[in-house]
Amino acid sequence: MPEREFDLIAWIRRAASRGRGVRTGIGDDCAVLDLPGGRLLATTDVIVSGVDFLPRENPVLIGRKAANVNFSDVAAMGGRPLWLLASLTLPPGLPAHWARKVTRGLLDACRAAGASLVGGDLSATSGPAAICCTALGEARKPVLRSGARPGDAIGVTGPCGGSILRRHLTFRPRVDEGLRLARVATAMIDVSDGLTADLDHILDESRVGADLDSRAIPVHADARRVARRSGRTPLDHALTDGEDFELLFTCPPRRFPRWARRIGTITRRRGLRLDARAIRPRGYEHVLG
Amino acid sequence: MPEREFDLIAWIRRAASRGRGVRTGIGDDCAVLDLPGGRLLATTDVIVSGVDFLPRENPVLIGRKAANVNFSDVAAMGGRPLWLLASLTLPPGLPAHWARKVTRGLLDACRAAGASLVGGDLSATSGPAAICCTALGEARKPVLRSGARPGDAIGVTGPCGGSILRRHLTFRPRVDEGLRLARVATAMIDVSDGLTADLDHILDESRVGADLDSRAIPVHADARRVARRSGRTPLDHALTDGEDFELLFTCPPRRFPRWARRIGTITRRRGLRLDARAIRPRGYEHVLG
Repeated sequence: MPEREFDLIAWIRRAASRGRGVRTGIGDDCAVLDLPGGRLLATTDVIVSGVDFLPRENPVLIGRKAANVNFSDVAAMGGRPLWLLASLTLPPGLPAHWARKVTRGLLDACRAAGASLVGGDLSATSGPAAICCTALGEARKPVLRSGARPGDAIGVTGPCGGSILRRHLTFRPRVDEGLRLARVATAMIDVSDGLTADLDHILDESRVGADLDSRAIPVHADARRVARRSGRTPLDHALTDGEDFELLFTCPPRRFPRWARRIGTITRRRGLRLDARAIRPRGYEHVLG
Repeated sequence: MPEREFDLIAWIRRAASRGRGVRTGIGDDCAVLDLPGGRLLATTDVIVSGVDFLPRENPVLIGRKAANVNFSDVAAMGGRPLWLLASLTLPPGLPAHWARKVTRGLLDACRAAGASLVGGDLSATSGPAAICCTALGEARKPVLRSGARPGDAIGVTGPCGGSILRRHLTFRPRVDEGLRLARVATAMIDVSDGLTADLDHILDESRVGADLDSRAIPVHADARRVARRSGRTPLDHALTDGEDFELLFTCPPRRFPRWARRIGTITRRRGLRLDARAIRPRGYEHVLG
């Protein structure tokens, strides 16, 4: 009986009752947790060999990715990363220096994001290597997915598409951009599943719709390269590839920052439209069977 | 080139410089992190099918274990669990209800420990299932591994050995006991690797030795059952099996609680002795090659 990832998450979200100090639980980029002196962000993500990276790829970059996908989630709340915990699950055949290089990558990513590696775990597995990280951060006023309002402009921090060529490993999480956007954004998410799929999460949580302008979508040069072989358009890659780790946000038009790209407008009418034609949000989704 | 788990951890511990707000980093049961209004505990542990549980075991109990090994680490700091994040890495062949039952177990463990499930991740793998949890908690004054002093009594909260028969899945983390011990303990750890191996972590970090009294070691009935088949003594199982998840602690003798079992004394002289004879600490250790 196959079950799609989002169905299972929806079930877990219903089953997990909200407890003490939980301001935002399952269902956003990070949990938002109340502490006596502030607001704590917590998020976890695992990357698996053969799914999120290839065994032959540079282990330093694999470590960087494992940390940075989590820092990107902190950035998507308008938060500042503080601490990282990392669990390595390793098959017996891997050379010892592989784990050291992965750790080097974790530490590089921590340094770049201003965070510290504070804990972890090592385990054996008979399957492919996996790296599970948890990032903790702080935010004065976390930006959720649920705050978009009709009339808000939709923006993105950079070009999308074709991340598979290398950027999915080498991207820089948009921490500084997220901190600046936190002052104006009404909703925010990072582009991990795909531009339209992630926009759809904002639309769902905010109970609104969106009009996108195809000519305004910033298409990455890598999307054009990939399109030459895929038979799909560069725009299609930009809208659906994912793992761009740019920030996608909404904000009142008069407060829209000059340095970001405006790609559309939030509407009261539900659904997602591209150049006034309804489209189905698409992106990467694990299918668990 | 085989490398033992503790060597790699020692390398990571040296490589991870201590950053902002990190009171205790890698090397204890939890990281201790400074926040404006208090002290945050953070710990992560992954359990893997075929290593930490068997595929045919009850998935509700597997989920409970995944959460409880982390709550046990919070208990070992004298802390109170607050929040849990959980990542499930699942092979395509698993039925969908397996993940739901694991989640049910995670939620059961949260409820019992007074914590909330606040986040997580789902990923696909071609290998065995794995569950990676991160627990966050609070402690007024965290009990580290490094505070044991010569003359301190050594205590344990319950009998050890033979956990493989079932207790490694069904144990209850000693959260209440840990909170009570926090008022008197100078050092504390949970028995996961094995009684002598975990005591050795305290001795290492505190730079002291220990005398144990074999007649005082509380031997679990399961250790006797396992010993009938293993050809080893029940005491040997109690000293080395691990996954008991009892708390092992040190405290001034006059403050030793009546309800705990005193098993020995901390000495200035380094090394570990059982009935005055030097023994080598032994326990479970992953070997990564």
